[in-house]
Amino acid sequence: MAEPARGPGRPRDNSISERALTATRELLVERGFEATTIQAVAEHSGVHASAIYRRWSSRIELIEEATFPGLNPVSVRPAGDLRRDMSRFVRAYLGAFSAPAARAATAGLIAHHQTSGRSRPPELYLRVSARPQFREILSAAPPGTVDPAVDPDDVFDMLLGAVLSRTLLADAAAPQRPVGRTVDMILRLLRPLEGDGAGAGGRQ
Amino acid sequence: MAEPARGPGRPRDNSISERALTATRELLVERGFEATTIQAVAEHSGVHASAIYRRWSSRIELIEEATFPGLNPVSVRPAGDLRRDMSRFVRAYLGAFSAPAARAATAGLIAHHQTSGRSRPPELYLRVSARPQFREILSAAPPGTVDPAVDPDDVFDMLLGAVLSRTLLADAAAPQRPVGRTVDMILRLLRPLEGDGAGAGGRQ
Repeated sequence: MAEPARGPGRPRDNSISERALTATRELLVERGFEATTIQAVAEHSGVHASAIYRRWSSRIELIEEATFPGLNPVSVRPAGDLRRDMSRFVRAYLGAFSAPAARAATAGLIAHHQTSGRSRPPELYLRVSARPQFREILSAAPPGTVDPAVDPDDVFDMLLGAVLSRTLLADAAAPQRPVGRTVDMILRLLRPLEGDGAGAGGRQ
Repeated sequence: MAEPARGPGRPRDNSISERALTATRELLVERGFEATTIQAVAEHSGVHASAIYRRWSSRIELIEEATFPGLNPVSVRPAGDLRRDMSRFVRAYLGAFSAPAARAATAGLIAHHQTSGRSRPPELYLRVSARPQFREILSAAPPGTVDPAVDPDDVFDMLLGAVLSRTLLADAAAPQRPVGRTVDMILRLLRPLEGDGAGAGGRQ
């Protein structure tokens, strides 16, 4: 009973996968990460557990594909207006984590991979996928708007923290600030210090 | 927690609690969040599961007390040197999350409380405990070193993100930047922009 090769000519297989993935997302939102087991997905989707196991070797793999389907979520073509470009970028980056199912799965996936010791989504999403885009936006910025003394990776790491904190601590005690405040902070990190001897970097 | 009042006169209870808490921290580090069950703690500590349940109603409560025992981890007395004060503060704040057991538990606890819909440690730790301290340090900074136009809460939120990202994504693909880089970023957010009308109040 080997699995027949799947391809564009086999819509039936795709539909089974789609049903399992959709059910996974629904369960994550409705019942949370722990309750989203293969068995629960089977019951919720009507797809047999054995058919799910033929496609994904574990519930973690299934949840990952359902919530972080690829590694290129952020695609903003810089127009050369730093504030506008950065604003679109931050919103797109945050958007990839703000889908309800992704939001419900992120902490659980991080916890799982911390234990397993391997780096996987959403870590890859956070760290790897958006960094080149971020650098591109800075390169497209008009001269004089980005301090050459600041390290883009340092600023990106701050943005990554802001995204993670917004994703993981949402709905907690304190209300969240508007996204525009985060954009302002990133621009503040990048701005040149006028009247400063050009190479002073982060030092006052 | 139907815990009978503990006091200095009940060393025996304290020792049982201490053994359970220590075993919990050890298990978190050695086997991870999921494997740290009441039963595993009982076996590892030699304390009966029933005695553990008398003190903590769930494994989550036990893990929380073992890893986030209070809400006042950061205590830095500002000396009025912004860079030094901020550096000590960031290191202390990060330190509260960097104990191996806390590091192993944070993502799991966040995931659990996301599902339960309540805000608890480590959210409280992150959001509540350190914010007043942060404001105190800014108040103690010499005139002209902190831009009055910047909202301290915005800057604190960026710091919170940096701490969370350092705690949760540690040991993942990319190597972490030195803590000093995070301190630099925070100072950069705070610095007045010379020649800028908005920051004029902070100028000498």
